[in-house]
Amino acid sequence: MKIAAFLTHSRIGEFAFSEENARRLVEVLPSATVYVCGDEETFVEELEDAEVALVWRFRQEWFDRAKMLRVVSTPAAGRDYFAVEPPPGVRIIYGRFHGKIMGETAVAMMLGASRGIVANAYRMTTGGEEWPSGRFTGALRTLAGAHVVVLGFGNIGHHAGRLLKSFGARVTGVRRHPEDDCPAWFSDGDGVVGVEELDSVLPSADHLLCVLPSGKETDHLLDARRLRLLPAHAVVYNIGRGNSIDELALTDALNDGAIAAAFLDVFETEPLPDASPLRKARNVFLYPHVSAVAPQYMNLYVDELSERL
Amino acid sequence: MKIAAFLTHSRIGEFAFSEENARRLVEVLPSATVYVCGDEETFVEELEDAEVALVWRFRQEWFDRAKMLRVVSTPAAGRDYFAVEPPPGVRIIYGRFHGKIMGETAVAMMLGASRGIVANAYRMTTGGEEWPSGRFTGALRTLAGAHVVVLGFGNIGHHAGRLLKSFGARVTGVRRHPEDDCPAWFSDGDGVVGVEELDSVLPSADHLLCVLPSGKETDHLLDARRLRLLPAHAVVYNIGRGNSIDELALTDALNDGAIAAAFLDVFETEPLPDASPLRKARNVFLYPHVSAVAPQYMNLYVDELSERL
Repeated sequence: MKIAAFLTHSRIGEFAFSEENARRLVEVLPSATVYVCGDEETFVEELEDAEVALVWRFRQEWFDRAKMLRVVSTPAAGRDYFAVEPPPGVRIIYGRFHGKIMGETAVAMMLGASRGIVANAYRMTTGGEEWPSGRFTGALRTLAGAHVVVLGFGNIGHHAGRLLKSFGARVTGVRRHPEDDCPAWFSDGDGVVGVEELDSVLPSADHLLCVLPSGKETDHLLDARRLRLLPAHAVVYNIGRGNSIDELALTDALNDGAIAAAFLDVFETEPLPDASPLRKARNVFLYPHVSAVAPQYMNLYVDELSERL
Repeated sequence: MKIAAFLTHSRIGEFAFSEENARRLVEVLPSATVYVCGDEETFVEELEDAEVALVWRFRQEWFDRAKMLRVVSTPAAGRDYFAVEPPPGVRIIYGRFHGKIMGETAVAMMLGASRGIVANAYRMTTGGEEWPSGRFTGALRTLAGAHVVVLGFGNIGHHAGRLLKSFGARVTGVRRHPEDDCPAWFSDGDGVVGVEELDSVLPSADHLLCVLPSGKETDHLLDARRLRLLPAHAVVYNIGRGNSIDELALTDALNDGAIAAAFLDVFETEPLPDASPLRKARNVFLYPHVSAVAPQYMNLYVDELSERL
């Protein structure tokens, strides 16, 4: 089985497929021969007789040359970066392993907000206040006893939820098909509701974690009205896709004190424009779409791929 | 049973005992009458016929007036704030509930370091770099698979360790009596060693969590030599007592890149002097002794006390 891999990344080394990753794949699939391609030209040549292509992006016209192709696999979880129509007999496989990494990122953000880790570290380190312990009164909470609403309760949301349970948080998942099975780690007080019930769970959310995919259905799902259903101490997190939150409404909600803080890893436009009002919003913490970065990223991808091939 | 409570706090509201806390105590102990004292003079008067005293500090001479006293209880976990010799028949009870809160703080710091939550949030928010995703290459890790050494493996260390296991970390506890029972949540790879074996576990520590009590035995237990046994990517956390780390040696280790970062909530001198070289150290994140602050602090204390009385 010939596998052509064209997974390079200009900025993040963890998102590049290496010869070592290829060896790991061959160990599990001894019948495979993996060609690691460093540029598009080499990849398109190898594609001629490849059965499997590993890519970040695929061009529609490449299908015409790839007569042996049966599988196009991408580590990406989101369909949005990958708008091609495969011919009959070719299936596209998206990554499903991200929850193992992004679940940690979600909890890291929530604890960062709850335990004063982010907002207050700098008071003493960057100067200004020598011993600001009085500032922490009323500012620190625990995940124990907190109610976390996970908007988009798929693989990533499940991983985050399972971790949150070990802290004693209560979890409400919101998804399109609430009638599907609930995770085994659910206990009393946990639940799943449909998107049409979102408004009813927001007023009791201490934390709102957004892990929604992009698409028309999720565009500005969190608009000005819904953001203001949250209590004033609530914190909003987005590690899904940027289209799901109305950024101007979020900026207003932060600046008005309608919500307490926001941790954002994704944005309506990426890179986030320098002129975005979000950059100046009160209690906002911004990340450049890195919630899935970890040393084991490509190994998790390889392990999942070898199982699914 | 007359209980005199003198638990006020000048800076942190969560550390003050309120009438509401008193009502919670009486609910569980209906025979109790609780006198909430707002100042020392009132408290010393109530002490004349009190059987139980709830205090942050106690003066040795107060025992002479308190003829009915049987129990002095303090929420504090550390013996260092409380150097009195009770007369026969009076026992002193220290708080043991802190692990429920401080376990979260410990994991919050570790995730804050591992997932780039603290060091990198400010790049985009405070300006300078528009989209610094390339900076995250090699900088983000997971607690899954990490080796955490917990130096001082008592109540707080156990709570942190149990949470760390749910992330898939490996835990090594270091304590004076390694032969005592291991926690039920230990799995393959976890273990407990004595302080004399500390040097052998430091070279494989990804995270070193210090939760040591103060005292001669722990003075500068982490000195220059031991700090340099850690790998360069290791992060040091201290939520125990400041005497256990040689702060000048730690500052050097940070500035030389011998360790990656430090999160410190306690210091050799508190408040941390403005001139401390720690304030200018590389990758240091400083907190003003607030790792136990949470809304439920006094309720946890009351619940524990009512069980132990």
